[in-house]
Amino acid sequence: MGRWEPNARGRLGRAAMELYVERGFDRTTVAEIAERAGLTKRTFFRHYADKRDVLFAGMAPLREVVVRAVAEAPASLTPFAVVSLGLETAAEMIQERPEDVKMRQAVIDVHLELQERELVKLAALARDIAAALRGRGLDAWLARLVAEAGMAAFRVAFARWIANSAEGPLTQVVRESMEELAATIAEG
Amino acid sequence: MGRWEPNARGRLGRAAMELYVERGFDRTTVAEIAERAGLTKRTFFRHYADKRDVLFAGMAPLREVVVRAVAEAPASLTPFAVVSLGLETAAEMIQERPEDVKMRQAVIDVHLELQERELVKLAALARDIAAALRGRGLDAWLARLVAEAGMAAFRVAFARWIANSAEGPLTQVVRESMEELAATIAEG
Repeated sequence: MGRWEPNARGRLGRAAMELYVERGFDRTTVAEIAERAGLTKRTFFRHYADKRDVLFAGMAPLREVVVRAVAEAPASLTPFAVVSLGLETAAEMIQERPEDVKMRQAVIDVHLELQERELVKLAALARDIAAALRGRGLDAWLARLVAEAGMAAFRVAFARWIANSAEGPLTQVVRESMEELAATIAEG
Repeated sequence: MGRWEPNARGRLGRAAMELYVERGFDRTTVAEIAERAGLTKRTFFRHYADKRDVLFAGMAPLREVVVRAVAEAPASLTPFAVVSLGLETAAEMIQERPEDVKMRQAVIDVHLELQERELVKLAALARDIAAALRGRGLDAWLARLVAEAGMAAFRVAFARWIANSAEGPLTQVVRESMEELAATIAEG
C-alpha cells in the first residue's frame, strides 16, 4: 500500500513542466521533479523513462486516437477528408488541457534537441497515418502524400493556436487550416 | 602553392560517401576519408566542419536556389504554384548528380541521428520558403501553410524518386506529386 500515490503520474508531469519552464529543461533533475511532486525518484521512474519522456509520453495515446479515427472514418470520405478528420480528433484531445500543452510547447520551443525530437515524433505520426490510409486501400504513395500534407497543415494550425488561442478551439483552427490549404491549392 | 589540390572538396565528398556506404557513418573517421581521397586531415577541415557536414553541406546552395526562385517567380502565379516552381528548381539541382544523391540517402536512411538532422534541415528550408513568400506580400500563416504543404509533397516525391528512378527525372516526379496533391484535395 505504501507506494501507491494518487495521480502520481499527473503530479510528476505537472511538476516537471513547472520546473522546465522555471529553470529550463537542461537545469532540471529527476530528483527535483520528484521532490516538487512530493514523490520519490523511484516513483518517477515507474511512470517515465527519463525527463524527456515526460514531454513526449502524450504522443502514444494521440497516435492511437488518430490512427483509429483514420481507420474507422466513413468509406464515403475522400482521403484528405479522412486525414482531416483524424487530425481534428487529435486536436480535440490536445485542447482538453490547453495550459499544459502551452507550457510543454514553451519548453520545446527554446531547446533545439527537443525540437528535433518533436519533428521525429511528428514524422512518425505521419507515417502511421499513411499506414492507416493504406489499410483503407489507398495507393502507398498517395497515402503518404495526403498524410504528410495533412500533417503539414496540422502543424501550422497548432503553431497558430499556440501563438494566439483567441482564434478559437484547436479543432476549429485545424479545420480552417485544412480548408485554407484546399482553397489556396484550388486557386489558379 | 603546395596546399592547393585540384577539386579537393569534391574528392573528399566522394571518398566520404564511399566509406559511409562501405563501413557505415559511425565507423568512418576523418583520417580515413582524407586518406581515401589522397589528401590530409587538414585539407578535410578546410572544406568541411566535420564528417556529418559532408552530408549536409549541399543544403545551403539548395536553399539559396529555392529561395531565389520563390522570390523571383512571376507575380501572376498562385502561392502554391510559386512553391512548386521553387521546389522544381531544387529538384533540377539535385538530379544533376543522381548517384551521389542516392549514396547520400542510403547513408542517412540507416542512421537515426542523421535522419533527425535531415528533418531539421528540411524544416528550416520550409521556414525559408515561407519567409520568401511573405516577402511577396503573402499573409504569414498562409505562407507557412503553403510552404509546409509544398515541402511535404516534395519530400514524398523525393522518396519516390529514390525508391524508383525509372519514374523519370526528379523534376517530373515533383511536378506530378504537386498535381496529385492538388487533385486529391480537390476531390469530394
